[in-house]
Parts: sequence; C-alpha cells; structure tokens
Amino acid sequence: MYKITIRLRIICLIGLLLSCDPEKQNENPPNIIIVFTDDMGYGDLSSYGHPNIKTTQLDKMADEGIRFTSFYAAASVCSPSRAALLTGRYPIRNVPNNFGPESKNGLPINEITIAQILKNEGYNTMAIGKWHLGHQPEYLPTARGFDLFYGLPYSNDMILPWCPWLTEDDKLFIYEDSNAVEEIGFDQENLTVNYTKKATEFINDHQDKPFFLYIAHSMPHLPISTSEEFIGKSKGGLYGDVIETIDWSMGEIFQTLKETGLDDNTIVIFTSDNGPWQNLPDRMLQQGVKETHAGSTGLLKGSKNTSYEGGFRVPAIIRWPKRIPEGIVSRELANTMDLFPTLIKLAGAEIPYDRVIDGRNIYNLLKGENVASSALFFYCRGVNLEAVRKGKWKLRHTKDKGFELYDLDIDPSEIYNLKESNQEIVKEMHKEMKRFSKETGAKLLPIKE
Amino acid sequence: MYKITIRLRIICLIGLLLSCDPEKQNENPPNIIIVFTDDMGYGDLSSYGHPNIKTTQLDKMADEGIRFTSFYAAASVCSPSRAALLTGRYPIRNVPNNFGPESKNGLPINEITIAQILKNEGYNTMAIGKWHLGHQPEYLPTARGFDLFYGLPYSNDMILPWCPWLTEDDKLFIYEDSNAVEEIGFDQENLTVNYTKKATEFINDHQDKPFFLYIAHSMPHLPISTSEEFIGKSKGGLYGDVIETIDWSMGEIFQTLKETGLDDNTIVIFTSDNGPWQNLPDRMLQQGVKETHAGSTGLLKGSKNTSYEGGFRVPAIIRWPKRIPEGIVSRELANTMDLFPTLIKLAGAEIPYDRVIDGRNIYNLLKGENVASSALFFYCRGVNLEAVRKGKWKLRHTKDKGFELYDLDIDPSEIYNLKESNQEIVKEMHKEMKRFSKETGAKLLPIKE
Repeated sequence: MYKITIRLRIICLIGLLLSCDPEKQNENPPNIIIVFTDDMGYGDLSSYGHPNIKTTQLDKMADEGIRFTSFYAAASVCSPSRAALLTGRYPIRNVPNNFGPESKNGLPINEITIAQILKNEGYNTMAIGKWHLGHQPEYLPTARGFDLFYGLPYSNDMILPWCPWLTEDDKLFIYEDSNAVEEIGFDQENLTVNYTKKATEFINDHQDKPFFLYIAHSMPHLPISTSEEFIGKSKGGLYGDVIETIDWSMGEIFQTLKETGLDDNTIVIFTSDNGPWQNLPDRMLQQGVKETHAGSTGLLKGSKNTSYEGGFRVPAIIRWPKRIPEGIVSRELANTMDLFPTLIKLAGAEIPYDRVIDGRNIYNLLKGENVASSALFFYCRGVNLEAVRKGKWKLRHTKDKGFELYDLDIDPSEIYNLKESNQEIVKEMHKEMKRFSKETGAKLLPIKE
Repeated sequence: MYKITIRLRIICLIGLLLSCDPEKQNENPPNIIIVFTDDMGYGDLSSYGHPNIKTTQLDKMADEGIRFTSFYAAASVCSPSRAALLTGRYPIRNVPNNFGPESKNGLPINEITIAQILKNEGYNTMAIGKWHLGHQPEYLPTARGFDLFYGLPYSNDMILPWCPWLTEDDKLFIYEDSNAVEEIGFDQENLTVNYTKKATEFINDHQDKPFFLYIAHSMPHLPISTSEEFIGKSKGGLYGDVIETIDWSMGEIFQTLKETGLDDNTIVIFTSDNGPWQNLPDRMLQQGVKETHAGSTGLLKGSKNTSYEGGFRVPAIIRWPKRIPEGIVSRELANTMDLFPTLIKLAGAEIPYDRVIDGRNIYNLLKGENVASSALFFYCRGVNLEAVRKGKWKLRHTKDKGFELYDLDIDPSEIYNLKESNQEIVKEMHKEMKRFSKETGAKLLPIKE
C-alpha cells in the first residue's frame, strides 16, 4: 500500500513537471459524486421511456444537465464494470470476471483507482454501498484510495459458503471502513435509505475541502427490497418501488448539496453497472425472488451478461450547474471509462501515463459541444471479445449467432442484421476486433463463415 | 346526407332538452386539432425513450401539457383505428377491417362522426391527409362532416388496380374536397410539408368561429419519404427524418396558433393510429423500401397488426394552455375513442344517445385529477377478439399462444406469462371477453386449455 502511494506520487510529480495543460482547474476543484446502481436497465427511468416507474428527481437532474442515450458500462456484469469505472481501463486489462464470495483476489494491487488519484490531490474520499472488487482486507475500498467505506464488500446475495443463494437463515456483514460492523440478512429493506444517510452525513461533514463520493447502490440487484415507506408507492411493483427509492435518494443528495451551498461546485454522475437481469437462472429464483423482479432494457435487445445493447448500454445523467448546460440530450458514444480521465482533469490532477487508459476526456462533450466521434467501444464477456461498435455500426461475433452487423442509428434494437449487404464493413470492423484482441489478449472466435 | 343531418339535429335537440350538464362550455368553445400519424410507434419520440430521433416540438408539447403512457388506438391497423377515433366506437361496431383500394364501401353511412357533430355545433371543419374510410364520393370526408378535405383517400401505397404495390410508374391522386386535383406517385417527398401548409392556411383563414382540424399524416406509413431539407437531418436515418418532419410540422402549427392569438383556446391532440410495421411481408419490400424503414415500439412487444402492446399502445400528447396543467405524465388507461365524448362535451354539444359510445369523457383525467380507473380495453384484430385489459391485467387468447396473462404494471413488455399462478383472474378476464363478444359479435376462440 505504501509502495503504491509513493509510486503514484512519483508518477503524478513527473506528470506535473511535464504538463502545461490549459484544462487544469485545480484552483477550485469540484466535488465529485458518482452514483452507480446495480443491474438497473436502460429503460428503468421515466426519462428513458418507462411507462410506470416515476423518477421525478432523476428526470429533473436530466433537465438540469445532460442525459446520454448511447452511454456504455464497460462490462455487462458487476466486478469488471466497477473495475473499469474506477481505473478507466477495459476489464480485460485488470478484472475480466466477477469475484465470488469465496474469492481471495480483487482489483490487482498495481491498478490505480480514481479515488487514489483524487485522495492524493487532497480530496476527501468515501465509498458507500457495494464494492465487489475484492473483500480481503488489502482489496477493500479503504486500501484502494477511499478514506471511508460503508457498505457491502460484494453483492447483496453473496454469503460464505456459496449456498448458492442467500437464505433467510444467512447473514451478510455491513462494513464500516475495513471492519464488519453490522449483521444484515435477507432483510435489506433499509439498505438504500442507510446508504443515503451516510452520503448526506459525509457531504455535511466534508465541506472544508473537495470530496469524492462514490455511492454504489446494492439495489436493484436481486434480492430486491426497500423501506416500508416506499412499498406500494410505485405503479411498477416492488421493482418500481426500489427504483423510486433510489430516485428519492438522489433528491436527498441534491437537497444536501443545496443546503450546504455546494451545489454549484459539485459534479454529480448517475449511471448503472450493467443491464437488468432477465430470464433468471433457477438458482436465483429462491425465497421471495420472483422472475418479475427485473428491470427493463427499454427498446434494447438482450440483458445483463449478454453483448447485445441491453447488457451494456445504460442510463447516464450528469449534472453540474453553470458548467454543464441545461437540458442536453447527448446521442454521442461515451462510456464509464471516460469518467476517469475527465474527472481527474477537472480535479487538476494528472492521468497516469505508464499504462493504457481506455477512457477519453469527454468534458467538451459534457459542455454540449459537438464532438465528431470516432470512438470505438469493445464488448467483452469475461475474456471473450464478442462485439465492437464504431460510429453507428456494431459488429457482433458469437458462437450462437455468427456475425451480426447492426446500424445502431436506425436500428438501436438490433433487429436487422445487415451483414450480407455490407461485407466490407464487416471486414473492417472485424479488423478492429483483431487489433484489440492482439493488444489486450481478449479471445476471439475463429472465423467459420 | 340530408337525412343524417336532420336526424342528428333531432338527436342533439332532444339531448339538449334533457341535459343540464355543468360541464357544458359552449360559450367559448375551444378550437380542436387532432394530429393522427400513420404507423408511428410507441417508442418513436424522444420523450418516449427513442435514443436517436429528436422530437423537440413534441417533447415541448408534452412539457406544456399531458403525456400518456397507457394510451391505446382502438385497432392495430389503419381503417378501423380511424373509424374508432371519429365515432367513439369500437371498430367491431362499424369498420372491423381495412379498406383496400378496390373497396366500394366506407364508414357506414349511419355512423355519426365527431366532425358532423362539431359542424352542426357551428364549427368549421377540415380533414387533411389520409382518410381511408371509403374513397367513393359518398364516403369521402366532405360527405362525413368535413367542410374541406385535402389529402389522399387511402394509404400512400394504394393504387388501382392493386398491383400489389405502388411502383415508379404509378400515380396517386391528391384530393381537394371531393375532387382528384393533383397526381403524385412514388415521389411523395412534399406530402408532410404540403399538409402542414394546408393546416396553417386553414387556421389563419378560420379565426372567426371555432374550428375542428383533423390532420391525418400519411407518414410514416410505407413508402416513407420527406422533403430535401429534412433528409439526413436526423440521427435515425430516413425513418428518423420522416418523424422529425412531423415534429417540425407540429412546431409550425403551434407557431400559427400563437401568431393568430388562438393558442390558449385550442386543444391539440397528437397520437398515432397503431404501432409500427416491423418484419414486413415481402410484397412491401419493393422499390426503395427497406426493412429498416420501420418505427420502434420502445419497450413494448409486438408491432402493427398484432394484439401485443406494440400494436395498440401509442404515444399520446394533449396540450391546452391554462386548461390542462403543464408537465403531467399520465399512466392511466385511456384510448382514442375517449376523444369523441370528451371533445364533444368541451364543444358544448351532445353525445348521441341512440347507440353505444365506447369512449368515456376523460376531461377530469386531462386536468390531472386522479381518476380511479376501472376502464376496460378490448383488443380486436378484424372481427376476432384477441385480448382484454382491465386495470393492470391483460389477458390474451390466440391460436398460436393460447392464454397469456400479463401484469402490465410490472411487466409492460409482456415477458412473464402469469396465467398458471392466477387462474381466477384468467377466468374473470375471460368472462369480460365473453361478455364483449356477446354484445358486439366479435369472435372468440373456443377454449381448448
């Protein structure tokens, strides 16, 4: 841990000496809040078209900031998606697969998290909620750049021994920093409310210097639950109640920012780690869990743990009064890895240059400027590279379906496979996949067709 | 025609003598504009979750009025849906099927259209766009309550003889009132713009007394096209361009209402006749028509000409400044047939009482009042009754799938068939289907299960 900090300081120092960046704004660096939900679908918010779930606070946040319609999580399952958010790097580079409750590993120690960089820059840092990047002491948030932690070290269904499912007799431990402090079990009704209390306390207690607050909600990951006051409030059933609780939570955060006078200097990011889990495996359908406890991908095909859009494309709303113009709907391609360099730059810190950072600084895009996007996005499932997006085109290559080519501009629902009439594009896109595979070691299927 | 007018007057007179209705507001009756698009899907507008199509004017209209998320067309194909809109009655009662270009019939002469009632009440009336309720002289709009007509008597792909498809050598005739005045063919680029010109002209020319303007766009029915100025403007391809042209058209109408000072006293309704046509039959894939020229159902299952939600549920936005509160999202069940009694009441006229009117007056709902909805909705395809919705439940009974029971509150995408665990509800709902079948003659499948 000590070694890493020293190494980080040296990297940053060298970076500082070399750089002369006009975007550097460390005179009055912004507070940063990232809210990261678990398994919430592209279609789960009113502003993304849900007919029954009412997300007043999030829709207002979108009206006051920017809402993305082509924003991606870097993986369609939990741990890799989190690793990518915190390191700015594709999961294939550090955490390709989920950690189970039996796991001894975590986000590799030589990875640098955004929290480490911001902490080093003088930020107060806190992680609230689900971690899932290693639950051994050396991998917990407090060992990875966060001053404080309150939450669950992994998913809210995970216990030891892998059972394979949380039952009414089991217990999970809420951690405070690196200590297990509180037993909870099947009864998780107050999780979202408690996370919210911790978040508003942290904001209230850290007004003196900039802070980075990472709120990784455990919900709506299964098994879902919420406090009594939210039950039956939504028209969308228990799942809707859970989403509306998260929406309420956002309202509490904005209220606290306003009360503390920090609203204008705080950038708040809301997004999800991957698409909703639909067509649940039987092992998940236990003790009160219903197959209908699932989110919506909206108009997108596929769901969690697939490389169709429903697995990777997520809602994303970013608000920063006076800096990000109001009411922008951005249809540009962006992803959670972009937050790493963007936020680090905004904090006036330096981006590590001794490793590949896959994210790009999208601050111009947030400001509503037109950015001619030549960005690529690679869809890995575990160590397998299954698809690539370049501009409007998406090429997918899987064992089940062979090659599929979609024009996501005219066909975001991936209905019309256009490979036959666009062989050249298939070839070009496949070349991109081969290049990425060669660079990262991500596995490609051999071509049979 | 003369007989009908006399009969209508007698009905209205008796109604007037019998009624003493506090909702009667004929002192300053509102202008009424209904915009009815053709085959536009539930998911085709930004405010309904489309990621690429930008519908600025319609989204603004929603912000200034009410947007429905459970609003239904009365049929999932053209003619019946139009008959229901104009008569307030289920298509099984008057026009169960589409009219082809060879058809000698139309909306039965003894049906009373909303235009007839409003005209009788002193309104100026005009129909613009697609009619499709009979193209013989006695069935054209000018014989059914409209002073003026400009448009196509049927769909924009229909010609005589049924070919089966419009080709580059064919011509369609634009009608002005009851005369074919202009030949157009495959080249329909200016249709939406021309309809819009006629609409704004009509508004400008009829400021002296209340008017009813029915704009039934021919688009985005196949083959789609739009004016040069809109080509390539959308991120959603040609289909997106076509929708954005309709959006532009709405802006022109609102602008004209503002310029003429009529804005506050005009209720504007925007909706679609049915869901988008996906998985096109081969006969439609001719001469420039691509399978990707199709709309989006958003998160809904099915499409045009099916009894899944994607066929029947449509976008619906209603704006009436100062009368309808701003920014309401209504999740209540409503349908196009409800417009008939609602608008007739608002005009201070009487609803015909010598026949079943299936629509209900939803003015309270438009005002944002909570209405405990016990409404039913029946889904017919032609003469066959395939499904019913009651509250959150939808029962479907088809040859292919047998019984399907969906909870549309928690599962608007009709993914989870809950019939096994809810046999009593299946029975109750099927009883409703039997009752409707007995009343209207709609055909039910025999029960095999």
